[in-house]
Amino acid sequence: MQMSESKESAAGGWLSYRSDIKVLDCTIRDGGLMNDHKFDDEIVKGVYDACVEAGIDYMELGYKNSKKLFAPAENGAWKYCDEDDMRRIVGENETELKLTAMADAEKSDYKEDILPKNESVLDMIRVATYIHQIPTALDMIKDAHDKGYDACVNLMAVSTCPESELDEGLELLVKSEISAIYVVDSFGHLYSEQVAALMKKYLDFARTEGKQVGMHAHNNQQLGFANTIESIIQGASMLDATMAGLGRGAGNCPIELLISFLHNPKFHVRPILKCIQDHIEPMRAKLGWGFDLSYMITGVLNQHPRSAMAFNDQKNKDIVKFFDEITLDE
Amino acid sequence: MQMSESKESAAGGWLSYRSDIKVLDCTIRDGGLMNDHKFDDEIVKGVYDACVEAGIDYMELGYKNSKKLFAPAENGAWKYCDEDDMRRIVGENETELKLTAMADAEKSDYKEDILPKNESVLDMIRVATYIHQIPTALDMIKDAHDKGYDACVNLMAVSTCPESELDEGLELLVKSEISAIYVVDSFGHLYSEQVAALMKKYLDFARTEGKQVGMHAHNNQQLGFANTIESIIQGASMLDATMAGLGRGAGNCPIELLISFLHNPKFHVRPILKCIQDHIEPMRAKLGWGFDLSYMITGVLNQHPRSAMAFNDQKNKDIVKFFDEITLDE
Repeated sequence: MQMSESKESAAGGWLSYRSDIKVLDCTIRDGGLMNDHKFDDEIVKGVYDACVEAGIDYMELGYKNSKKLFAPAENGAWKYCDEDDMRRIVGENETELKLTAMADAEKSDYKEDILPKNESVLDMIRVATYIHQIPTALDMIKDAHDKGYDACVNLMAVSTCPESELDEGLELLVKSEISAIYVVDSFGHLYSEQVAALMKKYLDFARTEGKQVGMHAHNNQQLGFANTIESIIQGASMLDATMAGLGRGAGNCPIELLISFLHNPKFHVRPILKCIQDHIEPMRAKLGWGFDLSYMITGVLNQHPRSAMAFNDQKNKDIVKFFDEITLDE
Repeated sequence: MQMSESKESAAGGWLSYRSDIKVLDCTIRDGGLMNDHKFDDEIVKGVYDACVEAGIDYMELGYKNSKKLFAPAENGAWKYCDEDDMRRIVGENETELKLTAMADAEKSDYKEDILPKNESVLDMIRVATYIHQIPTALDMIKDAHDKGYDACVNLMAVSTCPESELDEGLELLVKSEISAIYVVDSFGHLYSEQVAALMKKYLDFARTEGKQVGMHAHNNQQLGFANTIESIIQGASMLDATMAGLGRGAGNCPIELLISFLHNPKFHVRPILKCIQDHIEPMRAKLGWGFDLSYMITGVLNQHPRSAMAFNDQKNKDIVKFFDEITLDE
């Protein structure tokens, strides 16, 4: 991995690597958006074991979201990450791999459902928030921090945030108890130069408070990996990725590409390849994630992928009709 | 499409575009490497019509390669681009779309098989050469130019060229009768910063002689489109792309993504979507192009995709075994 010469201390040349970079696997959490988080234990265990063997830094097991809003009859265990469910997979997690769960602003009963850290196998709570939910997010961050967790924040759908609001939001978030804030391209809309500009902005805010910046990309325009590279070049140090890119809609940055790029000898791609072959690819026909033309169209138009996901659930798909409907809509 | 402010005159902001950029569709030529150029006329006509409707600048119909080396019994018409075959599809080509064919150094009987331009529907000849074949390539370029064609050169597998030889080769090529030279990432090995460095080098050589620089990317690491964007940022003006990325192995930069990015109002994505749905996707199961883990592995290792193509022809594929074989090989 190369870095521009103008970059900071941690920058290396093609034959070195940046040891400060941490990779977070969110296969189960983001991929669960394609199957209501109904994964067999065998699959979650397969991803966990592969993360441990591959030297991945964090694994996100799922959401800590509300059972009142998301009925347990309709959702799998990884929508809630109850302690018993997690321990069934990871035991006491006596490994180097840190565990995390995401809590959505306004969708989580965080005060009750997130236990004190000394009662949980989780190491980190990631709060996901839209720009207008920041006051709630700040309360969630404080709650997680006060319970003893490392806290991060994913500010979603940044490609739709007015710049003045974004500046105000970043100011508030970097002053909170978080250790890192993520650029989140929820709609897979951003090109590399937009990623670079956002990353610079986030880093400007974050560094004044000694916080890290992360990247969470989507692959609607086949740029999930490329935009993650661009983030690294700019100075991001927390990177989200998933096995075979499994994630909502077009999916995420593929972790097998990312760790091949990073050149850090602690990472090993072979266990990831095995996990993809044994556990992930067998789900593709049913879950149907990954780049396609419908996700490209919503990405280009800076829209949530839900219309493309509905399109992909149809039997006789006509992409020209989908394009006409979405572009001629007034 | 945004350009860094430091870039040259043609650079625009996000809401403008660079009118000097030309897009070349090489769906049939590069995709034909997956089926020995055996395309039904209906498909070639479908791609041609879509290029015309979509405002694409060039369409590459195939190769002008040797019938002595490539037996006509084993290859389709687009390995040779005989005049009668081309005219069966394009008539006199009374459109804005320019037509091109590629001739491989040491694989083409170019002196006999390439007709004088006034007897052909072709507008441009693209010579493909490896670094060690440049003397032959120079003769082919002169031949095409003398016959009245616009000539370009694709210097293949640049990721394997020693830098001193590359400098010497570029010096020779930019002084020839070409109008453009292409950075060709045959193995899909390059990351954005490597593309940027190569593009700067090519442009330095090319501009002294008033020549253009192009980009031909492969998608082994899901970077075909991203690397094409990086080339644009650096100043490339001739861009190769294919419908649905159809091309050898992991395929090429998808033209539907590229023209959506370019923002030039002369381009229209709808006819491309229709062509992909009607003609290209129906071939995927049989031709099997596109990103997969085996192509990723050869890309990361800077190898020709032939071992991955052989792997993909197997029935019971074991990607971990493929990885072990290719990485443990001594």
